[in-house]
Amino acid sequence: METTIAFAGAGLDRTDHIRADAEKLTSLMNWRARLLKLDGIDPVIAPDGSLDWGTLADADPAAELVFLGLMEDGAKDPRACFAQVTPAMIGSVAPPNPRLWSAMGMLSPTDLAIYGGARSLVDWHARHRFCARCGSPTTLAKGGWQRNCTNDRCKAEHFPRVDPVTIMTVECDGELLLGRQPRFPPRRYSALAGFVEPGESLESAVKREVLEEAGVKARSVEYVASQPWPFPSSLMIGCHAYADDKTIVIDETELDDARWFTREEVAHAMSGAEDGAFIAPPPFAVAHHLLKWWLAR
Amino acid sequence: METTIAFAGAGLDRTDHIRADAEKLTSLMNWRARLLKLDGIDPVIAPDGSLDWGTLADADPAAELVFLGLMEDGAKDPRACFAQVTPAMIGSVAPPNPRLWSAMGMLSPTDLAIYGGARSLVDWHARHRFCARCGSPTTLAKGGWQRNCTNDRCKAEHFPRVDPVTIMTVECDGELLLGRQPRFPPRRYSALAGFVEPGESLESAVKREVLEEAGVKARSVEYVASQPWPFPSSLMIGCHAYADDKTIVIDETELDDARWFTREEVAHAMSGAEDGAFIAPPPFAVAHHLLKWWLAR
Repeated sequence: METTIAFAGAGLDRTDHIRADAEKLTSLMNWRARLLKLDGIDPVIAPDGSLDWGTLADADPAAELVFLGLMEDGAKDPRACFAQVTPAMIGSVAPPNPRLWSAMGMLSPTDLAIYGGARSLVDWHARHRFCARCGSPTTLAKGGWQRNCTNDRCKAEHFPRVDPVTIMTVECDGELLLGRQPRFPPRRYSALAGFVEPGESLESAVKREVLEEAGVKARSVEYVASQPWPFPSSLMIGCHAYADDKTIVIDETELDDARWFTREEVAHAMSGAEDGAFIAPPPFAVAHHLLKWWLAR
Repeated sequence: METTIAFAGAGLDRTDHIRADAEKLTSLMNWRARLLKLDGIDPVIAPDGSLDWGTLADADPAAELVFLGLMEDGAKDPRACFAQVTPAMIGSVAPPNPRLWSAMGMLSPTDLAIYGGARSLVDWHARHRFCARCGSPTTLAKGGWQRNCTNDRCKAEHFPRVDPVTIMTVECDGELLLGRQPRFPPRRYSALAGFVEPGESLESAVKREVLEEAGVKARSVEYVASQPWPFPSSLMIGCHAYADDKTIVIDETELDDARWFTREEVAHAMSGAEDGAFIAPPPFAVAHHLLKWWLAR
């Protein structure tokens, strides 16, 4: 399922061996290199509906440059692609906005994967300027895939975060458990979800979340699909589980409501209808694919 | 498979709603509360082979206390369990050592899950004293499941890291691809592995790692099992994939060697024999379960 899920497509060739090769990296920062155009941290869309790129000459002289990878474009040597972390971005985090969601609907799977990876990295640099161990400033290293502490007595190395999140549908008597968070649009229901905590397997995290949020005891957890979600750096891990008792006790700090829906109700909502029992999660969310997977099975 | 994998068992009841309830948390810090005994960051084993616990009276007065969860012990109210972050731990990270591996062999799945979660959290507090956004000191919050920046103009909230790692076996013509890292004991081969990067799905990460480390193009990635690995905070996500071409080109900075092994060679090594084609990964590693799963299929 991976290629049909937003942000999960094959993007650039990441060539991680180049990141540690300062000489090679410098040689790639040439006139053919491309710089991802960003509006704040949102994508800039070219007239043909693809991601817009400039050259390194367009970069803010005070920016840090992040090496995204190599792009094949038919030429003998692939082009190197970069994104910039400008002084204006430092410390600030722009949450996703309606303009971004609409831009995302236009981009190809490859462009969406490139943008998602770039957004997570740029955002991480903007919010990780200091060493968590000693408080000293850090500098960009390995083409932007690391930051190093500048304090000679510390020298800690820091790496971009990826936060695993489990997101799960639960089935009982042929019906599906879905919930709604307070921030959802009216009548939207979706899969329950939560961060994996230190010391948990995926399976333990799924069971804990379902019990905490809906009071339902889940069993027989299976993996369905995954999706990088760059707001700011989640790895959504989609699972399906079963329950033997449909009694729901919701955690009101997390959810407005949770309900069991029949196969017919889920199929109606997933057809795009807005007059049914609920409104389905949007196609770019991995929850949409969990529901689609369940209906197809 | 989860309960048979080291660190992946059901540990304490994490009751995350208590973490944000300062009054409730204080009331749980009573004479019945238990404090996990640690030697440095290694577990202390009681004479009966279980984790050793003391009371909060044993805590270093200068320590930060981390709330691990509640333990059912037959009494009317469950006991609260804590671990301490002592001043001696700050900034230092003790890598796993032979004494720890041997202690791990003694602990029950529940104790191992409790210790693993506690170790990851304590280690995170020891190495995350300052705000990565602004460099100011941070303080423990929500029972140790968060640290908050003390700078009133920043107030960033920081959460314990969980770093997803893919670890994978690859099959071609009924043979299995395994590799050896330079740090492995002699003749040990195991599954290839690597951190999931920002912007990657699990499936993309598996394909990238196999291509980078062994030059093999993998397809048809499937999920097998997961394991929290508290050194310091990985979530190992075990996968299986297929390849159509057995040509190997290893990345010599990552691997000493990679080879294809027959089913008979894998079965012989997994029987514990050390006179075969290779020595198998140890039972507490998720790689051991990947090999067992493949043989059983």
